[in-house]
Amino acid sequence: MSDPHKPGPSTPGPLRLGIAGLGTVGIGVVKIAQRHADLLASRAGRPVQIRAVCARDRGKTRDADLSAYAWETDPVALARRDDIDVFVELMGGSDGPAKAATEAAIAAGKDVVTANKALLALHGQALAEAAEARGLSIRFEAAVAGGIPVIKALTEGLAANRIRRVMGVMNGTCNYILTRMENAGLPYEEVFEEARQLGYLEADPTLDVGGIDAGHKLALLAAIAYGTRVNFDAVELQGIERIAIEDIRAAADMGFRIKLLGVAQMTGRGLEQRMAPCLVPADSPLGQLQGGTNMVVLEGDSVGQIVLRGAGAGEGPTASAVMGDVIDIARGFAEPVFGQPAATLAEAVPAQAKAPAPYYLRMTLLDKPGALAKVAAALGDAGISINRMRQYGHADVTAPVLIVTHRTTGADVTHAIERFAATGVVEGEPVAIRIEEV
Amino acid sequence: MSDPHKPGPSTPGPLRLGIAGLGTVGIGVVKIAQRHADLLASRAGRPVQIRAVCARDRGKTRDADLSAYAWETDPVALARRDDIDVFVELMGGSDGPAKAATEAAIAAGKDVVTANKALLALHGQALAEAAEARGLSIRFEAAVAGGIPVIKALTEGLAANRIRRVMGVMNGTCNYILTRMENAGLPYEEVFEEARQLGYLEADPTLDVGGIDAGHKLALLAAIAYGTRVNFDAVELQGIERIAIEDIRAAADMGFRIKLLGVAQMTGRGLEQRMAPCLVPADSPLGQLQGGTNMVVLEGDSVGQIVLRGAGAGEGPTASAVMGDVIDIARGFAEPVFGQPAATLAEAVPAQAKAPAPYYLRMTLLDKPGALAKVAAALGDAGISINRMRQYGHADVTAPVLIVTHRTTGADVTHAIERFAATGVVEGEPVAIRIEEV
Repeated sequence: MSDPHKPGPSTPGPLRLGIAGLGTVGIGVVKIAQRHADLLASRAGRPVQIRAVCARDRGKTRDADLSAYAWETDPVALARRDDIDVFVELMGGSDGPAKAATEAAIAAGKDVVTANKALLALHGQALAEAAEARGLSIRFEAAVAGGIPVIKALTEGLAANRIRRVMGVMNGTCNYILTRMENAGLPYEEVFEEARQLGYLEADPTLDVGGIDAGHKLALLAAIAYGTRVNFDAVELQGIERIAIEDIRAAADMGFRIKLLGVAQMTGRGLEQRMAPCLVPADSPLGQLQGGTNMVVLEGDSVGQIVLRGAGAGEGPTASAVMGDVIDIARGFAEPVFGQPAATLAEAVPAQAKAPAPYYLRMTLLDKPGALAKVAAALGDAGISINRMRQYGHADVTAPVLIVTHRTTGADVTHAIERFAATGVVEGEPVAIRIEEV
Repeated sequence: MSDPHKPGPSTPGPLRLGIAGLGTVGIGVVKIAQRHADLLASRAGRPVQIRAVCARDRGKTRDADLSAYAWETDPVALARRDDIDVFVELMGGSDGPAKAATEAAIAAGKDVVTANKALLALHGQALAEAAEARGLSIRFEAAVAGGIPVIKALTEGLAANRIRRVMGVMNGTCNYILTRMENAGLPYEEVFEEARQLGYLEADPTLDVGGIDAGHKLALLAAIAYGTRVNFDAVELQGIERIAIEDIRAAADMGFRIKLLGVAQMTGRGLEQRMAPCLVPADSPLGQLQGGTNMVVLEGDSVGQIVLRGAGAGEGPTASAVMGDVIDIARGFAEPVFGQPAATLAEAVPAQAKAPAPYYLRMTLLDKPGALAKVAAALGDAGISINRMRQYGHADVTAPVLIVTHRTTGADVTHAIERFAATGVVEGEPVAIRIEEV
């Protein structure tokens, strides 16, 4: 018979958090913990309490009352505190303090919740192995697509599916820039400058516009989807810096939009991971995505296509994801970091060639007799057949030409472009962009 | 020191399933278990095995090899078998065998996975209390929006949010009928007959077109969202049977689409649950939803708006959701049925009045001088201001008039329509449909 004075399993103690990083997201987490203490307790089955926080500058003015929490200046010291159960890492950065503190937390037997995509994309395997060896969780819903519960959907909701493809628009800044270019008819440089002034860009903007940030997220999704070790180095990365307003306009004319789209799929050639500008049909859910919103598309052999849409960044959405993970831990949910034990994750063979797809080509043709025929012949010689072609009216001696091909390979497109040079009728460098069939 | 010959916690035994109901979904579950045994084991952390199945007619030809499983004709007997851990209820029906067998499973200490929205919408509170008293789970992802992991998103992913509103298009048949009416310009009766011949309708079509099936789903979402006892009787139900092709056309002219939309929200007036035709902007995610696809929109105070889209029915999607729940149980995830202990769920006060909204009005005006002014005056007298009004050209003595109001109440709209009768210029009964602001 149990001792009536001893708390039984039905009355677990509070789950005690240490929050490292008090930027936008950290303060968002504090606000939820303070505003919704009762709600969290009733849903988590036990109180969720912040015990200690950590940031470099204690004197900074912050939008929350932190006086009830112990203060640490060193995140490693926070991670090791005896009075916390979960280390919430919201500092960012793939190495340095974030990594050291996460490792310290695991060594000290703490579960970890993190929003740090770079850390996990580069060190996820080692961290997962360390955590799982000690029976600990690392949860990272907030690291991918902000408030959208996509890690949960993929790892849990769709766990009975062989995943066919994962796609995502997962960097709101890039999508803002691309949609603003289209809607305002402005060139990239001008909108980039606007975005900088609006504070939409990371301190190192290449993380955004170079596709690195979104590439980190894709690598995490691919690891879960295919049971492979996270391998960010194998992500084919191409940013949006060279997207011309002419291509955005021309794509729209042909019924497409240009998105910085992440795609992960396992084919007979290996694991394909790419984060690159693609054309998608303007009337598809991905094509209709405007501004800073994120979208992830998950395709499974049983479930078909699931589309998830929401805010990919910001205080509230990201804090929502962090606290969702915290509640899972409070409820006792424990699963391997990437959905199956880290020790069983396979080393994926990176695909050496991309799955075939239609391509969009834009080139400038010299106004000579037979010019279009020569281009068409060059495509035919490269084994590419044309789906749609459009030549625009022109006032001078050159004419813009748009081509949508049938499904072909990147290699064949490269061959065709080489052949164009020999025709003597194509001016400058043609533009070729993959069309993702969504 | 532990005995090396005894299986430790790292090698749990198989999770053993009993499947009651071998229709489309049941066979879909069998297929996944057979096709993906390794995948399920690696993700669940233990083998997932079907041990016994149950259906009325053993002789029926089914699209799966069932010879390896024990056969029961009585679902209650299946539920009580010693060799199953999880009772998977895929029979359907709010009472009768499904209820009896689910109760028997709980009494026998089995976790339950079900796709049965009617059962839970009507008996969810009692079943949840019974299960939770024994430390058991009832999971029902497949009961709402098929393959879309919306129960998981709401109960877990968004658990740190106060939910502001839940909306959903959750009956694929109704959305098929409405989009087909618009795209083909056909009246309701004709498309209904098409749907019947295509096998899209339940044996009792009122379950679909009367909004009952979708209403069951909404009641379940509302219980989770607001921590209230599931109360299907309080759902305001209105089907699509009286939607005229004229209204679909007129709504489109004004930039809207008509959807059978479920909305749950907690206001100062109480809990509002309605499943009724609404206008939504044609360019919103809900407005763009075509055919049999489902969409659920979740709005939380931190996360903002999350949109989930996917197949709401069918063998693969529904079986995916069932097996996702099974894997959660295999992983040891245990949470209260409705996200917080059933004993703590509040009895919600049903809202006596709906939240204010804009309304769409369509009426036929007699072609008399001052007719439009009289209608406008009647609206003004009822306290309703007009956002947009459109009178169409006409060949005879009547003219169709469309009005989009500013935000108003259902009561004021009723008053206005009463006043229209007194004007002597409105022919027949005006149509009024709520516009949901999405």
